[in-house]
Amino acid sequence: MRMYDLIMKKKNNGEHSKDEIRYIVDGFTKGQIPDYQMASWLMCVYFNGMTKAETIELTNAMADSGDRLDLSGINGIKVDKHSTGGVGDKTTFIVAPILASLGVPIAKMSGRGLGHTGGTIDKLEAIKGFNVAISEDEFINNVNNIKLSLVGQTGNLAPADKKIYALRDVTATVDSLPLIASSIMSKKLAAGADVIVLDVKCGSGAFMKDEVSANALARAMVDIGNGAGRKTYGIITDMNEPLGCKVGNALEIYEAIEVLKLKKLEDVDYGIYRLLEVSLTLASYMLMGAKNYDEKEASKNSDMLSYEQARKLCEEAITSGRALDKLAEFVKAQGGDAQMIYNPDKLPKARYIEPVYMEEEGYLSECKTSEVGMVSLILGGGRETKESKINLAVGIDIKKHLGDYVKKGDVFAYIHSDDKDVMDEAKARLLNAYKISDNKKEPEKIVKDIVY
Amino acid sequence: MRMYDLIMKKKNNGEHSKDEIRYIVDGFTKGQIPDYQMASWLMCVYFNGMTKAETIELTNAMADSGDRLDLSGINGIKVDKHSTGGVGDKTTFIVAPILASLGVPIAKMSGRGLGHTGGTIDKLEAIKGFNVAISEDEFINNVNNIKLSLVGQTGNLAPADKKIYALRDVTATVDSLPLIASSIMSKKLAAGADVIVLDVKCGSGAFMKDEVSANALARAMVDIGNGAGRKTYGIITDMNEPLGCKVGNALEIYEAIEVLKLKKLEDVDYGIYRLLEVSLTLASYMLMGAKNYDEKEASKNSDMLSYEQARKLCEEAITSGRALDKLAEFVKAQGGDAQMIYNPDKLPKARYIEPVYMEEEGYLSECKTSEVGMVSLILGGGRETKESKINLAVGIDIKKHLGDYVKKGDVFAYIHSDDKDVMDEAKARLLNAYKISDNKKEPEKIVKDIVY
Repeated sequence: MRMYDLIMKKKNNGEHSKDEIRYIVDGFTKGQIPDYQMASWLMCVYFNGMTKAETIELTNAMADSGDRLDLSGINGIKVDKHSTGGVGDKTTFIVAPILASLGVPIAKMSGRGLGHTGGTIDKLEAIKGFNVAISEDEFINNVNNIKLSLVGQTGNLAPADKKIYALRDVTATVDSLPLIASSIMSKKLAAGADVIVLDVKCGSGAFMKDEVSANALARAMVDIGNGAGRKTYGIITDMNEPLGCKVGNALEIYEAIEVLKLKKLEDVDYGIYRLLEVSLTLASYMLMGAKNYDEKEASKNSDMLSYEQARKLCEEAITSGRALDKLAEFVKAQGGDAQMIYNPDKLPKARYIEPVYMEEEGYLSECKTSEVGMVSLILGGGRETKESKINLAVGIDIKKHLGDYVKKGDVFAYIHSDDKDVMDEAKARLLNAYKISDNKKEPEKIVKDIVY
Repeated sequence: MRMYDLIMKKKNNGEHSKDEIRYIVDGFTKGQIPDYQMASWLMCVYFNGMTKAETIELTNAMADSGDRLDLSGINGIKVDKHSTGGVGDKTTFIVAPILASLGVPIAKMSGRGLGHTGGTIDKLEAIKGFNVAISEDEFINNVNNIKLSLVGQTGNLAPADKKIYALRDVTATVDSLPLIASSIMSKKLAAGADVIVLDVKCGSGAFMKDEVSANALARAMVDIGNGAGRKTYGIITDMNEPLGCKVGNALEIYEAIEVLKLKKLEDVDYGIYRLLEVSLTLASYMLMGAKNYDEKEASKNSDMLSYEQARKLCEEAITSGRALDKLAEFVKAQGGDAQMIYNPDKLPKARYIEPVYMEEEGYLSECKTSEVGMVSLILGGGRETKESKINLAVGIDIKKHLGDYVKKGDVFAYIHSDDKDVMDEAKARLLNAYKISDNKKEPEKIVKDIVY
């Protein structure tokens, strides 16, 4: 086999065999296929796409390129969730304790990553003493004992994806659907869960700006997951404004706790409602995935869990306080200060908290969500480069949402900052990220579609 | 400017500015743009093409990347010809002396090249004593004195093209029309002629298999040439069987001499007729290009040369013997044995010359021309790698042409070889390259189109 011929084949819109895909992934990972040939092939994939079978094999080959997390020591059906990334997304801290409190094991490996805030692992470090670097044994034991553990990425997970992504990043081949889908799913497959629920964000703060693209990505990822033998759901959710009210690291932990403390789920702030709706949908599908894992078995015993049943169980996990207790238990098990969960005011706080006032009157009609993320970044809440240090205390607390009628002088948001000098820029950019109009525009549906 | 953005632009079918094209060519040539980014960009060009303006600028930038041949010391309008390559193409040895005998200066730089036979320069070395490595001064002087000189490629002509071509060669981006056209034309522009006549081969032995593709390539090259201020013609000629009868190095010189010795041009062998027709067409356009160079001036003096007039002059150059004398004069001026021109039987001869007999009866209806080239290669007439040594004596002398009716036992061709062992394979492959059918199929038009 020669890489030249495989470039030519994909250039002419041919379909690669499994062996050809393996040859490309393994050859490139081992350095036998040079960057320039891989770059050419990736551009052909950008232009001509890949079939379902090719995409599944590409994902499997990348997942096989390094370690696979061994979750065989965990009893029960393991469930994982993944978000394609948005602003204010703290659903993991809500969903994971709900599931664990219902007896579903959550063994989650998370990254730090670049972006407007830190990754899941960074955010957890806002809790005093919390240790994200526990051993694999401790990780497995914790899941078996309390059904929930979260660790930073260890081992050499999907190194082929890492190397291919680095090349895509400098050759303008990031925006290829099969490459995006296989990149995400290769890490999910290597992370070992039986059920995978994907939160595919859609809108101005997401990689996928429109529903057609988000649906296509969800479809591609679900096909890969199911094709590789994992029960997979894709939930397409709105990202045309931040999810919830708070953007930051400690602030997002704070808001997740607020949600888990709710005694009733009606008549909540619209921002909280959006966050709750996404979290409960994800949690319900994760629960269904776990309980109905062996569908034939389940239907024979006529104990197939419906969405309504699953949703009710997840809602009760919140209103009963059991999910909050589970979060505290999880924090304690990894060395964290559980008191911070019951009393989140103890979480790190920024030195300056200043209101941002509305300067115009009208309906909030549009949000450049990624600009809100940029405000968090300039406050120091995220990483611009791998070397950047994150400030866990800073962020934004938004009081108004799309569809709200606002008047001049209303408090639109609070900026949490450790640096006075950056306040003015942060306020101006935040206001600028929103458009005000005379006519009310109904906000987008929160959960747009389910793909499975 | 960042290469990443330029890849993205071409990926999204944008048009590059002149500055952007220069940035890409200069950056890559200097090693500032890495191979993998250039490979991605080239693949985008493959998929999205380039505009006429982009292609002209790409060609100019590559021509500017190294030395340009300075022909200013030569009096008169300098004319060059280029062939896109085929089997049995010896037109240069016919056309150049015709033009020189008519007073048009031919200062030609030629390559050795890989292929089924050697390049122009290799073939000339079949003439005893001929020196292809004369100095630039000698080259210019010879052209001024006798109107004709041919040298091997010296200096650093279009190094950008060389580097880009090497990358295209390993990344499956050779077959892109604007890249092919600009690659050829960058060297022609650097070689300095005022008038360029392009012989664009079309058919089973050419890079372009069909007329539409050949026309498109001719159009692209002519547009580049004219856009860069050189009077350019594209002549599309048939390559569905070898041109003429003889394929090899000394054999092709031999056949060119045969043509230049003709006293009348009618009733010649059909193979010779094809060669003559292509040669006379090329020569006529070269002559018209030179004589009508300043068209306004020419038409005012009402001395615009028509094709018919030019053709008549070129034909007389042959039948009068003046072109043959010019070839001898040229050979002598570069140290070669001019007696070999008047008595070509003195040219190198292979040890074994064996007939190939027809094994079937019917009409010769189709030729895999590149297979005939392969036979020349296995006889040792060409180079497989840069290091291969060429055997100038070997080759093929074909006695039958497409449209001919043949019978079993007829002599189809003679194989000239220095190696008995390779004879059987050569004979079998040569016969296999031709298809015989019951119905006569008229051969293709020899000169298919003129693009200017």
